[in-house]
Amino acid sequence: MNQTTLLPAYALPVEFVASLRDLLGERLSTNTAIREHHGRDESIFPAMPPDAVAFARSTDEVQAIVRLCRDHRIPLVPYGAGSSLEGNTLAAKGGLTLNLQQMNGVLAIHDQDQTATVQPGVTRKALNALLRDTGLFFPVDPGADATIGGMCATRASGTNAVRYGTMRENVINLTVVTADGEIIKTARRAKKSAAGYDLTRLFVGSEGTLGVVVEATVKLYPLPESIMAAVCAFSDIESAVQAVVQTIQMGVPIARVEFVNSVAIQALNLYSKTGLPEQPHLFFEFHGSQAGVKEQVELVQDICRDGGGAQFQWASSPEERSKLWEARHNVYFAVLQLRPGSRSVVTDVCVPISRLAECVGETTSDLQQSGMLAPIVGHVGDGNFHVQMLVDGANQAEIDQAEHLNARLVARALAMDGTCTGEHGIGLHKQGFLLDELGSASVNLMRQIKHAMDPHNLMNPGKIFTF
Amino acid sequence: MNQTTLLPAYALPVEFVASLRDLLGERLSTNTAIREHHGRDESIFPAMPPDAVAFARSTDEVQAIVRLCRDHRIPLVPYGAGSSLEGNTLAAKGGLTLNLQQMNGVLAIHDQDQTATVQPGVTRKALNALLRDTGLFFPVDPGADATIGGMCATRASGTNAVRYGTMRENVINLTVVTADGEIIKTARRAKKSAAGYDLTRLFVGSEGTLGVVVEATVKLYPLPESIMAAVCAFSDIESAVQAVVQTIQMGVPIARVEFVNSVAIQALNLYSKTGLPEQPHLFFEFHGSQAGVKEQVELVQDICRDGGGAQFQWASSPEERSKLWEARHNVYFAVLQLRPGSRSVVTDVCVPISRLAECVGETTSDLQQSGMLAPIVGHVGDGNFHVQMLVDGANQAEIDQAEHLNARLVARALAMDGTCTGEHGIGLHKQGFLLDELGSASVNLMRQIKHAMDPHNLMNPGKIFTF
Repeated sequence: MNQTTLLPAYALPVEFVASLRDLLGERLSTNTAIREHHGRDESIFPAMPPDAVAFARSTDEVQAIVRLCRDHRIPLVPYGAGSSLEGNTLAAKGGLTLNLQQMNGVLAIHDQDQTATVQPGVTRKALNALLRDTGLFFPVDPGADATIGGMCATRASGTNAVRYGTMRENVINLTVVTADGEIIKTARRAKKSAAGYDLTRLFVGSEGTLGVVVEATVKLYPLPESIMAAVCAFSDIESAVQAVVQTIQMGVPIARVEFVNSVAIQALNLYSKTGLPEQPHLFFEFHGSQAGVKEQVELVQDICRDGGGAQFQWASSPEERSKLWEARHNVYFAVLQLRPGSRSVVTDVCVPISRLAECVGETTSDLQQSGMLAPIVGHVGDGNFHVQMLVDGANQAEIDQAEHLNARLVARALAMDGTCTGEHGIGLHKQGFLLDELGSASVNLMRQIKHAMDPHNLMNPGKIFTF
Repeated sequence: MNQTTLLPAYALPVEFVASLRDLLGERLSTNTAIREHHGRDESIFPAMPPDAVAFARSTDEVQAIVRLCRDHRIPLVPYGAGSSLEGNTLAAKGGLTLNLQQMNGVLAIHDQDQTATVQPGVTRKALNALLRDTGLFFPVDPGADATIGGMCATRASGTNAVRYGTMRENVINLTVVTADGEIIKTARRAKKSAAGYDLTRLFVGSEGTLGVVVEATVKLYPLPESIMAAVCAFSDIESAVQAVVQTIQMGVPIARVEFVNSVAIQALNLYSKTGLPEQPHLFFEFHGSQAGVKEQVELVQDICRDGGGAQFQWASSPEERSKLWEARHNVYFAVLQLRPGSRSVVTDVCVPISRLAECVGETTSDLQQSGMLAPIVGHVGDGNFHVQMLVDGANQAEIDQAEHLNARLVARALAMDGTCTGEHGIGLHKQGFLLDELGSASVNLMRQIKHAMDPHNLMNPGKIFTF
């Protein structure tokens, strides 16, 4: 198939393009490959490329672009690293994609206040690299090296959320260009405030449908005095998950606790040479003072031993620790190698922790019965886990089967008072599930807010819910 | 002055009253004393009584009341304990006040998940009394024994927020009757979710202007294995505040750290017989394992000693601890006794902690120069502190002077990138300051949301911003 035939038939007005060209010069692209690239994320959706891609370098440029889009009624899709998983950044209605990667300045680090103010294109790894000498770190770590702006948009989370929270808890304020082209600040830099509606939290998780984040102030944390990491094998899933449930219920301030099922372990062994037994595992990390970590470790070791877990295997040096978590973060790519040429249908749910073992257990049975290669990994300390179903992207029956399994998983999570997505967002993929989860009155309320703030439906249109 | 002359001249339509009477019987009141009572909070504002007060007992009743108000275009003010400080619950436009105190059921305690689902009229103390045998507690503790519904409305906070967060972090989901009479759920009971706009956080802090909270699911925490509390006297304010700043910057997971200045100590000595030296003090509480608490205590003692603090005075038994924190929570009433018959103009600001010492220092000088009796206390671990200015309520010049000092304090906090209110909300009192803090574009965005969700301006009208 010729790539250009994939492009939807939206044409941009000549005047609009001319104005953008005046503003951006070479940083406005209508190149097919670039449009294609911006029309994909890590989801199974076919490419939905924009008609053009703008690369902004400043808040003023973003404001000018938003105003041009508003005046010409052109859809605008803010774009970070393109690592979203539910079609969140696809140009479903064509228009302009606004690539923010070049807005990658760290504007301020207030080490005494433990905050950093960054532009949206800074990635989480770049921020942490810059923080290296401050004794501070930024904890939120989705699998990909996502941008802070994108992480705000999807309310991202990751392995550290069990201790440090998600983007919901870690954004102090945002500067946003709203749909009508105003530059607003959602809050000051105080740690807490009771000053009016929580605009910060309204934009966090809004997936670019209400405005473009142009600056974010996020929380930083002191690097712990002591860090220890270990893996522990279990004979069965239930025991592994129950060990997590007990750890959380006892109030252990664990920094990371990740479940990796035996299929995912197999993939890691192949991809990252981890050499682990092909059994369900927990990956742990403990942060604190030396005495505090020792205490946590003893408690969790006891819990695991009582639950039939094997001996802890320690990653004691910083290098071994990095390798361990690098491996964990690479699960997505490692798993893809289990079936070369395959694509992933990825999903995540989150349930109250009292229902976690049951939810993971039933899901495992369901996947096993389906015969599909579909590893489970997850941030189980939060009740959150992911299924990555490997399909032949050209085989619609397989995709349908994966979607069917996904629907059953979501229904199971909702029946347990859980959510259809713990951290990936709704995007294009989970709009029906959002309705199942909250009901039409709640989604209508979201719609009312969208109508009020973006009456022409120009900001990332078609995402989260139909307009 | 005859009390009835204080009532504004809003008349309720006969049909509306008849329908409410059918619904509520004796639980609809137009009694002058009851209206007066509901027209006051702890602020300096003159009473603004509603035309009638409804006492609801169920979500269905709340829905019916909201629909009647909508159909008849009657303002509706949700009301909990009436302990707000910025005029948040005054019936500024008359109409109906909806007292939710009788909706005081604890609907579910999920001890394994560490959540409780409660009706809005449950007070924080009642919830904790009920939790006594579960090994769990609910940490958010504004000074008053506020209702959970009211605490949601003002995004309440308190002495434990430095460790456990505010209502922003501690509400998992809400059930709300919206302005158009729909019953919506803002989220499921999962610990985290990326499913659409964060409606929970939109209602938390909206001061009843967007709907009526009829159920809230909140986070609970395991009672720590070990708790220790102490007070420490300092020779000057700067040293006390700097000790806090250092404690936070070192990442000590302190549970409470309260600043109480010498005037407030004087009041406490008189009211609670605390017998403390009349100097600036810090009140500490440490939570953790026995070893963890010991470690925290040693670290913080060192910090205080290096900063010129006196020996820690320990409140070691649970009774002594209760007495200490009871005294701290009674500061408001204790201070009022310093000038019998006086009223308080209370204000709170919150600044980045790097600016805290400077902000408290300058504020102290300003207050001293004014000659006004105005103790400072605060949740300084969050950068948050309160000033309680004692005035003769009949002396307009004194009230004006207090307002002038308040305006200077807010301007000082804003200049330090802080907020005009850390935890009391905007209410009637701080609307101008909200504009100073966020600018008109941000406040307009709040207004757009209000217009979309409550087009007839019936939900607690006149609060946070002008419609």
